[in-house]
Amino acid sequence: MNVLLVYAHPEPRSLNGSLRDFTVNHLQQAGHAVQVSDLYAMNWKAVLDASDYPEREAGAPFNPSLESKHAFQHGTQAADIAREQEKLRWADTVLLQFPLWWFAMPAILKGWVERVYAYGFAYGVGEHSDTHWGDRYGEGLMKGKRAMLVVTTGGWESHYSPRGVNGPIDDLLFPIHHGILYYPGFDVLPPFVVYRTSRMDEARFAQVREALGQRLDTLGTTAPIPFRQQNGGAYEIPALTLRADLAPDETGFAIHVA
Amino acid sequence: MNVLLVYAHPEPRSLNGSLRDFTVNHLQQAGHAVQVSDLYAMNWKAVLDASDYPEREAGAPFNPSLESKHAFQHGTQAADIAREQEKLRWADTVLLQFPLWWFAMPAILKGWVERVYAYGFAYGVGEHSDTHWGDRYGEGLMKGKRAMLVVTTGGWESHYSPRGVNGPIDDLLFPIHHGILYYPGFDVLPPFVVYRTSRMDEARFAQVREALGQRLDTLGTTAPIPFRQQNGGAYEIPALTLRADLAPDETGFAIHVA
Repeated sequence: MNVLLVYAHPEPRSLNGSLRDFTVNHLQQAGHAVQVSDLYAMNWKAVLDASDYPEREAGAPFNPSLESKHAFQHGTQAADIAREQEKLRWADTVLLQFPLWWFAMPAILKGWVERVYAYGFAYGVGEHSDTHWGDRYGEGLMKGKRAMLVVTTGGWESHYSPRGVNGPIDDLLFPIHHGILYYPGFDVLPPFVVYRTSRMDEARFAQVREALGQRLDTLGTTAPIPFRQQNGGAYEIPALTLRADLAPDETGFAIHVA
Repeated sequence: MNVLLVYAHPEPRSLNGSLRDFTVNHLQQAGHAVQVSDLYAMNWKAVLDASDYPEREAGAPFNPSLESKHAFQHGTQAADIAREQEKLRWADTVLLQFPLWWFAMPAILKGWVERVYAYGFAYGVGEHSDTHWGDRYGEGLMKGKRAMLVVTTGGWESHYSPRGVNGPIDDLLFPIHHGILYYPGFDVLPPFVVYRTSRMDEARFAQVREALGQRLDTLGTTAPIPFRQQNGGAYEIPALTLRADLAPDETGFAIHVA
């Protein structure tokens, strides 16, 4: 299996750094090929801007979406963007590992998504018609690949529980699971989350490694979150609202899971 | 009224640029003082890293939270961070304006939050005890100030409706409303959202300006989203789960709104 680990933490001598090293070693020892995009170590450019398109018409207004479409089609994207797209094409499985900062991914990783997810690569793929609204949410270029988040939080598990003050972790991660991973076609596995990172001793760290190792051993067999395909008949097109007879009278993120 | 507009779009000649200019002019004509943090124009450093703490001990492992706490206490933060904190102290009302990219704020704005929201300024404020878990979620240094999001999306309003495929807009914005704005004490006003930005003609743009103008005219009087205060008795401490008799048997983001 080819595994791409996209990793976003500024300090290698951290819990996240240790989990990254464990993951790479564990997967390699199992015979898998691993590439790591260590965004801080790469000095990844986090900000999507006009300089990502060196061959664009000087002085013209910068439309991020149209510029991305043109550059992707014509092979004139910035080299760092094209390299990350190649890694995604190569991978069978993608892991995104990061600390939850302000209830979302760190800016450097968000900027990886914004820049690497080009028009024609991760969105703007496929036809739009009365029965098909683009190859997205279960279709797209990442179809057949798997993805999983590895997330750490300072807060306690109860703070992220179904009635916890921060909101349920599944809801906080939904925009990533569904909106960033399922959107271009990934099958999304349940996340691996480590809570209360400030209270980590050797015994607990051993438990975390053991649990993470089991998740890594079953990357190919774990059942993905059963999100509903957008073009599979469950949604009205083009309104893209869930059919009235599915999860009737319910609303919210959870109705998009079958 | 002192209004800080934190603005994140790379192109001034865009819908977002026009709405920014309209907002500034409209507020100034009403007699308010306005400061704009135009993150792209400022070349804002999006990535939180060790270089934000120029006086830190060389070679020591970088712990973002502890380093932030120390630098905030000792006045050794990077100058650009301190300047933004001063603007927040000055403001009565804060507007965050951005296009929704991949169902969240752009990386450059996320990095503004991560860097400006120092330990001791936006988190790690107040005592932790059996009855009080920090000055947060309704308390904190931003108490008494108001905040509102101005958001644009390419997708249609129905795609963000309660049963829309992208998820309801209120749920997508909850981590910002509740986790980034209410957390340090802001009263959070309902957002101003412009959908389907690619279909904008002069007539529709006039309607949008009119609607936005009304929201700007009522910044001081609009009822905020009634989030529940963490330390007001609604939550068990330290589990921080909502008391069983409030919104009984319900879960999810919505239970944190009274």
